Amino acid sequence: MVALGGGHGLYATLSAVRRLSEKVTAVVTVADDGGSSGRLRAELGVVPPGDLRMALSALSGEAVEQQVWTETVQHRFGGTGALAGHSVGNLILAGLTEVTGDIVTALDMLGRVLDVRGRVLPMSPIPLDIEADVSGLESDPRVSRCIRGQVAVATTPGKVRRVRLIPADPPACTPALDAVCEADLVVLGPGSWFSSVIPHVLVPDLHEALLHTKALKVLVLNLAAEPGETAGFSAERHLHVLAQHAPDFRVDHVVVDAASVPEGSEREHLCRSAARFGAQASFVDVAETGTHRHDPAKLAVALETCLSSRAGLAAARGDGREIVSWL
Amino acid sequence: MVALGGGHGLYATLSAVRRLSEKVTAVVTVADDGGSSGRLRAELGVVPPGDLRMALSALSGEAVEQQVWTETVQHRFGGTGALAGHSVGNLILAGLTEVTGDIVTALDMLGRVLDVRGRVLPMSPIPLDIEADVSGLESDPRVSRCIRGQVAVATTPGKVRRVRLIPADPPACTPALDAVCEADLVVLGPGSWFSSVIPHVLVPDLHEALLHTKALKVLVLNLAAEPGETAGFSAERHLHVLAQHAPDFRVDHVVVDAASVPEGSEREHLCRSAARFGAQASFVDVAETGTHRHDPAKLAVALETCLSSRAGLAAARGDGREIVSWL
Repeated sequence: MVALGGGHGLYATLSAVRRLSEKVTAVVTVADDGGSSGRLRAELGVVPPGDLRMALSALSGEAVEQQVWTETVQHRFGGTGALAGHSVGNLILAGLTEVTGDIVTALDMLGRVLDVRGRVLPMSPIPLDIEADVSGLESDPRVSRCIRGQVAVATTPGKVRRVRLIPADPPACTPALDAVCEADLVVLGPGSWFSSVIPHVLVPDLHEALLHTKALKVLVLNLAAEPGETAGFSAERHLHVLAQHAPDFRVDHVVVDAASVPEGSEREHLCRSAARFGAQASFVDVAETGTHRHDPAKLAVALETCLSSRAGLAAARGDGREIVSWL
Repeated sequence: MVALGGGHGLYATLSAVRRLSEKVTAVVTVADDGGSSGRLRAELGVVPPGDLRMALSALSGEAVEQQVWTETVQHRFGGTGALAGHSVGNLILAGLTEVTGDIVTALDMLGRVLDVRGRVLPMSPIPLDIEADVSGLESDPRVSRCIRGQVAVATTPGKVRRVRLIPADPPACTPALDAVCEADLVVLGPGSWFSSVIPHVLVPDLHEALLHTKALKVLVLNLAAEPGETAGFSAERHLHVLAQHAPDFRVDHVVVDAASVPEGSEREHLCRSAARFGAQASFVDVAETGTHRHDPAKLAVALETCLSSRAGLAAARGDGREIVSWL
């Protein structure tokens, strides 16, 4: 199983997916330019490690020793000194990358210390930047401005129209392509839509692999719009902007939190949008009670349901590999 | 087997001792206030990790994975940024110490990643400072001044008369005491004499353990005086200042590089000084050709000779545990 994303959204997906499989591959955005990651890429030129580190932690082993290592990897130095805010795992990944010359080797090595169930890979082996066309920053709402950097995009008071990666045609991480091709289940999202989700379909070879994999593809929508990059976005608009960036992208299921989209016309619109991806929209309870976060246990059930409905249909058709769309 | 010291001297001893035993304990000074270690203790209040990290590296496993980890632990970030000069291992030890609240647990955990043969322990679980009375800094050579900090002591242009630890009565590390008591062989030195060797006999409980252990005790002298703290010191003077700091300290052997002390009166003086420690002076070739460093292979042979001469004498006396002095 493969989960693509970044940040806290990916952490939730991985926490869910690890309940379903011992062999999980995380494919992670590498365009962060803020915080500890941003300082490390600026100072050392390494792939920003923060989202990769969080993915390792989400998949780490449960023995006491590995849990203390995980806590240490996630630990941030405090105070006001030169190290303040750096997380230990980011520094370890930066050091391993400098020594081995390869972020994938670095991730595999730290993964073995954490007894990671599966593998964490960057979506590209080089640091990327995000650039966005944003409207609403000028008095004339038709004028859009180009802003650069994940932090700038994520926090813009304007309306993000389109994002691009810099470089525009980045290499994919080869083992990530292999993992997508060999997977039974590929999950994209939830996460910061423009800076953690859409970037995956903008890496040409990764987009290609996502088109051609025989895996069941599930898109998990966010529980709510995020202040900044998706402020005021409906669930349907999330699908719309994804389609704008990757018109031929297809998924089998769109998992939507039932409470986030009330029954009625809003659901109908969403079902129609999902159908344009070749997907069935599933309205299920996936929220952690009282929060805007996904509950890993509930999300795991939702993903398992997607998988078993495919298995059931495939069995009825006598074919275990065919991609099935419901709408 | 236990080796006490700090810095490059201890690295050489450990590289030697690991050839003789699978169960090596390093007991390491924790008074460094310079470089990466000094910055970490100042910023985070942790035990300075640098000498501990080097000891771990000296004892690390030989498999490829562990060797890459060792290289990473020793790796220093370059450039001119906030991380420049920090070694990755120092940052890992600082992080593990903050999370576990215990430098010994931190060392054991990193030791397992490095597949360390044995154990690395601090001489005290708290950061220490070194203070020295130094003469020759004023125009009147009888006037001595008190200077503080390992870097200041190690590089003083004056003559170090006496060093003290701050706090004066620091706690020892309990597992280090146990290791000294249970050892067959205890090796002190080589190393920066005032800042890495003598501090061990200034920790009251460690001094006590060194007095009462039934282990064979070997003092390894430096190959040459060090610029700064022991500039101009003869081999004999090294023994003399150690005796000044710990009058009742006893060792069984003093290992002296044969080429460093010419035959004749200088050797005779040294033998007499060694005898005051209850020790036999052994003049052997322990130098790495063309350097002022100890050669681990040669030092291992010298230590093994000390051990087997005791075993031979003990066998002749029908007693495997008696401490034997030769002079």
